Parts: sequence; structure tokens; C-alpha cells
Amino acid sequence: MQIAALVFDAITPLDIVGPIEVLARLPGAEIVIVGKGRGPVRDPRTHWTLTAEASLAEVTKPGVLVVPGGAGVRPLCTDEVVLDWVRRVHGATTWTTSVCTGSLLLGAAGLLRGLIATTHWASRDLLEQYGARYVEKRVVEQGKIVTSAGVSSGIDMALTLAARIAGDDTAKDIQLGIEYDPQPPFDCGAPSKADPAVLERTRQSYARAATR
Amino acid sequence: MQIAALVFDAITPLDIVGPIEVLARLPGAEIVIVGKGRGPVRDPRTHWTLTAEASLAEVTKPGVLVVPGGAGVRPLCTDEVVLDWVRRVHGATTWTTSVCTGSLLLGAAGLLRGLIATTHWASRDLLEQYGARYVEKRVVEQGKIVTSAGVSSGIDMALTLAARIAGDDTAKDIQLGIEYDPQPPFDCGAPSKADPAVLERTRQSYARAATR
Repeated sequence: MQIAALVFDAITPLDIVGPIEVLARLPGAEIVIVGKGRGPVRDPRTHWTLTAEASLAEVTKPGVLVVPGGAGVRPLCTDEVVLDWVRRVHGATTWTTSVCTGSLLLGAAGLLRGLIATTHWASRDLLEQYGARYVEKRVVEQGKIVTSAGVSSGIDMALTLAARIAGDDTAKDIQLGIEYDPQPPFDCGAPSKADPAVLERTRQSYARAATR
Repeated sequence: MQIAALVFDAITPLDIVGPIEVLARLPGAEIVIVGKGRGPVRDPRTHWTLTAEASLAEVTKPGVLVVPGGAGVRPLCTDEVVLDWVRRVHGATTWTTSVCTGSLLLGAAGLLRGLIATTHWASRDLLEQYGARYVEKRVVEQGKIVTSAGVSSGIDMALTLAARIAGDDTAKDIQLGIEYDPQPPFDCGAPSKADPAVLERTRQSYARAATR
């Protein structure tokens, strides 16, 4: 099964590297890293340069589409070439998925109208502008569309998807293979769990970033 | 503070993208992606091409060194150029860290003799050949050396390190920022937690990969 991972400048690299690390371990997985054009994309924040090995035009019928987020997703939400591609490949996929603000691109393409969905918690209002209803859940399945919460949630999403595609046993093997037995040092990874001071500080830092 | 992320062919990308996603959010973080030489490295399994922006010779005094794992770490463990570099920069670091089988490179450089340490569970015997004692722990601190378990553990390691470097408040902000509220679909992410059948299947698949 072809699994297409979309990349673009100012991506959040963990959004896409997390799920692809999981999905590449599925039997028969054929990963393709796709960009608007072939060639490098760069995230200036983390210094990663990732390379798209295929252009949008070269990827027409992936079985799985994974759309990550990051600051760079916003310009794509008004880019008709990208939006048309998302709509067209969604017509062919078995699963259309997003991580973090990748759901904004699915929303801008019109795929989330009337659905419940998730995104990075700081972007819930943006998501709802596209006619979706935000829920603070880690992974949200609506038919073949699977959205997931901020950044690190793509790992949970991909393991859930691995179980749907190849069965629980295979997904468990993958979870043990990536030794995914998370032990976060704090219990503050979702807005409803964070102290008000942590939430307010982080919210303000996202608001400042959004105005830059 | 300069944070050096080592990359090489046949790296496990999540090993290094996970912790760098966290550490790049530290105030004053200056990330440098370092390879044996400048230029692209490729993981054929996941199809990621990452780009080293600096060669070993250009990175002499990082504050933090992060060494990831993957199949490609094994040839580095007998590469005197790389081993010398690891030993030299370790002399300058505030923190020397590894994810997954990255600890084998620290071991090969002689940094783990007599210490407890961790690695990917399937490589514990290899780690112990370097004079370390393996423990099934997610993150192991021994002075300024911090080793972490397989693949996904680098996120926990980096959040722990972020708290040491910048305090709990900053680490909590980062954890909320990457929405790290993990909800794995199964409880099988460590050998002691997996069903015997899952463990045996996954162990055999690693053993087959090691002989290829």
C-alpha cells in the first residue's frame, strides 16, 4: 500500500516523521515523501532539511495520505494547486489522515465540513472556521478521515491506523519495535491537564508566533 | 546553547527528530545537524533524506550532543574518525545523550564503561559488550551522560533534559506545546509489558534484520 507523506517548508518535522516511522513498518508499506515539487524543504526552527522525492503530480492514488502541520501549513490552505491535489487524492485513499494543524489543510479542502475533528489545541478556532467541530481528543476517526492532535499525537494516530490496516498483532509488534512505552516527565500534555499558568504562557507564545 | 544532532545513513529518523523537536524549543537553543561530512543522509526504510549542515570538523564544542540509533550506527562503532569526534566533543559538552542504539556509539567510544545505561531492548547484549550494564529504563542519567531506550524514548529523554537545562516550567511549556499526552493504543511498548508472543515475533524480526 502506498503511504504518501506531505512535506513543505516550515513543517513541524515530528508531525510527519513520527507517523511514518510507524507506518513504514507495516508489511507491504511503500512510503513516498511528496512535496509541491521534488526537492528539499526546510524547517528553520529545528534546522531539518527533508527532501521530497516526488511532486504532487507524481502521486495520484496513495492508499494513505498523511498531512502534517506546522507554520508552513497556513499558506497551503489558500493554494489551489495543493487543495485540488488533496481533494483528488482523497477520492482515491483508503485513509486520509492529519497530524496537528495538518487538519487545517483538510478543512480548507472542504473535507471536514460537519465532522468532528481535532488539531493542535492552539488552532481549534481556525479548524472550526472550516465547518468542523473541534474535540480535545488525541485521535478522531470519522469514516476514512482520521485527524490527530498536536505534534506528538501522530504516533498514537499511526499505531491506531496500523491496527485498522494490518490488525492488532502487527500494531503491537510495531509499538514494541519503537519501544513506545511513553513516560512523560509531567502530566501537562493537553490543555485540560496543564496548570493554568502553563496553559496561559504557552497560549501567549503561540499567539505571538501567529502574529509574526 | 549549541545542540548537536548527529545524522548518518540508515538512521532511525524518529530517534533524532523527536528530541530535536523538543530541544529546539529551549530558549537560546542553537541546533546544528552534523554528519561525517556535510550533505544528505538517507534512511531507505522510511524514505527520509535528512541533510547534515555541518561536518564533524565544524562542530567542536556543542553544549549538548544527541546521538541517535538505527542500523547505520553499527559501522560508525568501528570508525575511528567518528569515535575520536565523539570522545573529543564529549570533553566539551554539558550533556552527552543517546537515543536507542545511539548508546552503542557512546559505548564504542569508551564512555559507558562501568555505567548503567539503556538502549533499544533488542540490543542490550551489544551494549553490554562495551562494559555498560543495561537496565530496562526509559531514561538513564549517569552524571552528564543520559541514555534512553528505543526510538520513541528520545521524546521523554529530551523533556527530562529540558527540565534540567531550563527548569520544570519551561519543560512543561514545551510538553504542552508538542501536546505530549501520549495515549498508545496498547500497553506493550517495553519487553516486560508485551505478551510473550509479541515479544518473540518482534525479537525474531530484529534477529533476521541483524543477519542481513
